Amino acid sequence: MPLNALFAANPKRWPEYEPELNRAFAEAGLDVYLSQDIAPEQVDYIVYAPGSSVQDFTPFSRLKAVLNLAAGVETITGNQTLKVPFARLVDTGLTQGMVEWVTGHTLRHHLGMDAQIINPTQAWAPAYPPLSRDRAVTVLGLGTLGLACAEALAALGFNVAGWSRSPKQHDKITCYSGDEGLKQALAHGQICVLLLPSTPGTANTLNAETLALMPRGSFVINPGRGPLIDDTALLAALESGHIAHATLDVFRQEPLPQDSPYWAHPNVTVTPHLASETRADTSSEVVAENIRRCEAGEPLLHLVDRKAGY
Amino acid sequence: MPLNALFAANPKRWPEYEPELNRAFAEAGLDVYLSQDIAPEQVDYIVYAPGSSVQDFTPFSRLKAVLNLAAGVETITGNQTLKVPFARLVDTGLTQGMVEWVTGHTLRHHLGMDAQIINPTQAWAPAYPPLSRDRAVTVLGLGTLGLACAEALAALGFNVAGWSRSPKQHDKITCYSGDEGLKQALAHGQICVLLLPSTPGTANTLNAETLALMPRGSFVINPGRGPLIDDTALLAALESGHIAHATLDVFRQEPLPQDSPYWAHPNVTVTPHLASETRADTSSEVVAENIRRCEAGEPLLHLVDRKAGY
Repeated sequence: MPLNALFAANPKRWPEYEPELNRAFAEAGLDVYLSQDIAPEQVDYIVYAPGSSVQDFTPFSRLKAVLNLAAGVETITGNQTLKVPFARLVDTGLTQGMVEWVTGHTLRHHLGMDAQIINPTQAWAPAYPPLSRDRAVTVLGLGTLGLACAEALAALGFNVAGWSRSPKQHDKITCYSGDEGLKQALAHGQICVLLLPSTPGTANTLNAETLALMPRGSFVINPGRGPLIDDTALLAALESGHIAHATLDVFRQEPLPQDSPYWAHPNVTVTPHLASETRADTSSEVVAENIRRCEAGEPLLHLVDRKAGY
Repeated sequence: MPLNALFAANPKRWPEYEPELNRAFAEAGLDVYLSQDIAPEQVDYIVYAPGSSVQDFTPFSRLKAVLNLAAGVETITGNQTLKVPFARLVDTGLTQGMVEWVTGHTLRHHLGMDAQIINPTQAWAPAYPPLSRDRAVTVLGLGTLGLACAEALAALGFNVAGWSRSPKQHDKITCYSGDEGLKQALAHGQICVLLLPSTPGTANTLNAETLALMPRGSFVINPGRGPLIDDTALLAALESGHIAHATLDVFRQEPLPQDSPYWAHPNVTVTPHLASETRADTSSEVVAENIRRCEAGEPLLHLVDRKAGY
């Protein structure tokens, strides 16, 4: 009897994921029937994604686990009908894509590229940026994504500090933690990258008070989650010049509404939640490995702690 | 008796270099009198830069060596009055700055950043770039600067090929050489970085014929030297769409004349020769080391081969 796996992620992704998941199942030695249409009471595993049409898990009477195709899980952790283990995705492709996006936009602000990309004055006015060793960068969040980005920036020579809720140590990154550490981390960086999960505890991490702790003329880069930023406070800080520029990939409401002041703000760059995306090949292998683990009675990879919210 | 070193680089740089050079001389145990004004027949060493007011070296009767404060030496290699050893600068700060600039602009084109930096349509249209492993980059020139850039791009996961006149080997970079290798290198990369020296042999390395060998929709990044590109051919390739975009830091005439078609071209980014700059602290140490070597009868670092032109 094969295991039944319901693909309840975005149907548009089915053509891309169906062959990769079946390949990964076969490579893991699993006999899995994968479909977008399986009666709930016959489903063993759900391959899930935020925004899925499946919101009530009650009818899935023999469900063993839900395997998310994204790192963000805030839309589901509060779902009381979900009683089985739930794993978020830590996809090497997603991590690599995030490293590229964060490194690219950090270098963009570090080098002051926009002055040349948008150059109406045709001015020949070379201004040399400092070297990376003289540029302080702060990464808020040292989970899989934050740590990978912080390490890539440190490898390029940047003076990198990171902050996490619980204490961490790293030989190339100055690590801060806790409430007092957050203040020090914010004071450190001229470029601040937000890669915290979205939880009740991280909402409005950047607010009027914490933005004021950042060096004047700082850059904010948010590829994490929209609610990490108090938008009103950020707009005020941009207005006063305390924050020089914000590059925002995520928002409280997506797509970003056309009347959002971010769109037309000269010191804001809006990117449409593209900083990183799961990749079918690498993420299918993680899903297959988790089904194998579950069947073997082994602990799931990247199991969500629903109390912590990530 | 101290050695007499004439500072014949740009007088504007004197306030920055004077303390760093004197610090470096002291640290190297050298007794050097450094000035912008020394009678030619009393000068032992010239600290030089392209565009110096010193063009006739004949009066410098006891000159031992000329030490350049830049990597580019094409304006002086043909000077028949220069009979003593001439060293170009290989400055770790300059190399690092070039790595940051090239990595930043490569990631910019790789990620398609301009679409969001200049976004008049306010479109929420996420388009995911490939991962770096699926992006081919070619670096023409594997000298100090080219090699450092190629290695940094390979470390970020890019599929990097490099080309040099003479054969090289590298475990992370596909190395091509010679005329036939140039064709293969050009066909490899969707992003092509030019870091060749300016010599009679490298003039118009990118011309109508070689541009046609590049994949359609490629990006050209030139932080090397202006004459490496046949400007007419590049403009035609941009016009036809064969080349999607060119980011140019160097030009045949600098500052770039206001009537250059590059300025207003929608698919060209002009940066005013800022890709990298020598840094007073690190480059002063190289100058001091070369004076120490010359006094000790040791071979100079980065001695220019005036026949090869670099």
